[in-house]
Amino acid sequence: MARLLGILGGMGPLASADFVSKLIAATPARTDQDHVPFLLWSVPQIPDRNLALAGQGPSPVPAMLRGLHALRGAGCDLAVIPCNTAHNWYDELAAEGGLPILHMADAACAGIAAGCVGLIGTKGTITSGLYQQRLAARGIDCLVPDPAEMTELVMPGIYRVKQGDPAGAAPAFAKLANALARRGAGTIILACSEVPPALALLPPESLPPAVDATAALAAACVRWWNEERPG
Amino acid sequence: MARLLGILGGMGPLASADFVSKLIAATPARTDQDHVPFLLWSVPQIPDRNLALAGQGPSPVPAMLRGLHALRGAGCDLAVIPCNTAHNWYDELAAEGGLPILHMADAACAGIAAGCVGLIGTKGTITSGLYQQRLAARGIDCLVPDPAEMTELVMPGIYRVKQGDPAGAAPAFAKLANALARRGAGTIILACSEVPPALALLPPESLPPAVDATAALAAACVRWWNEERPG
Repeated sequence: MARLLGILGGMGPLASADFVSKLIAATPARTDQDHVPFLLWSVPQIPDRNLALAGQGPSPVPAMLRGLHALRGAGCDLAVIPCNTAHNWYDELAAEGGLPILHMADAACAGIAAGCVGLIGTKGTITSGLYQQRLAARGIDCLVPDPAEMTELVMPGIYRVKQGDPAGAAPAFAKLANALARRGAGTIILACSEVPPALALLPPESLPPAVDATAALAAACVRWWNEERPG
Repeated sequence: MARLLGILGGMGPLASADFVSKLIAATPARTDQDHVPFLLWSVPQIPDRNLALAGQGPSPVPAMLRGLHALRGAGCDLAVIPCNTAHNWYDELAAEGGLPILHMADAACAGIAAGCVGLIGTKGTITSGLYQQRLAARGIDCLVPDPAEMTELVMPGIYRVKQGDPAGAAPAFAKLANALARRGAGTIILACSEVPPALALLPPESLPPAVDATAALAAACVRWWNEERPG
């Protein structure tokens, strides 16, 4: 059996599908057989991560561990989680999930060399400091949305994507990206996996330069596959 | 544990991603938790189905059964295979896979009431008669591509999609769809899962009316989920 990538998805389903599309697009392939083999666990009944972090709902960890254990049981030897907010529980998931997990923020920050970046993510991702710590270690400044932007733009946009309406979410995300750019961010990190499929619906010239954490994670998976592949 | 849909994918990877996107789009959902839970086995190292049917390569059945057994082992209680050609081995897969399989041609033909349809599919799908038999049982005539169209339009188009170039494949598929319409087909059945993601890149008004077998299978899965769901 060749190596098998496990994707703990469903957070949300559309974000998982976006990750899979980016994984396929990032793979140099002439035939089906050249593509990265993966197993996608998309069981979106995982309790809401944002509610859990706000103390308003049950922990998603048991459901996420069930997914990781199913992936491991089916033969996966590496996992990724195309949901930034879920990385709040990264240490616990890596310790108890039974297989190594490529960290999404590591993948997203790896390509950023200098300057000031703006961060678009859930309240859970922003307050966790997952991105800020990695960027600070590289001497990179980081701007985050203010509380009003979080409440009025980020969270409503994310829940619209989860409802299957990325087009409806796009203007809010674009407004925020451009506001962060005006405050000095040369690059925006799209650090919530619901954001890229919405912004992809707008003309690129209407947006500042951005790093798509989902695409960065997909590229890291293709590198893993090419490194590990026999021959 | 709620019910879990198993998707035997990877044939090809882009077609599987298209199926997943259509499953999500077809689901009435307000939150992540409203979406159909699924496990996607996308291991595209399954031997080429068209070469096997031409007697030029190994059987894909052992690899497909490994996928079905992995899906069953992880808790799936229904499977779908978003690849029409793979349905050449449907009876064997349903008998030995360990879980019921929704047939893609049943889903695609269910909504066609009358008239003459044109079929776009691989040589394996066309010669299997999977679609023609179902349509004949409903008194529906069926036009298929001629041998030159199969060699010059269908198969090169399909392999271009598998290479990650759906835009490059779209003109060939559109040319064939319009040729079948001129010969009398009122509706075209897109009976190869590589075809819809390519044709989606063209203006709808440049194409005759079509039934997308991938979308029909996705809709059947949403009906299954809504029927089986408690509450």
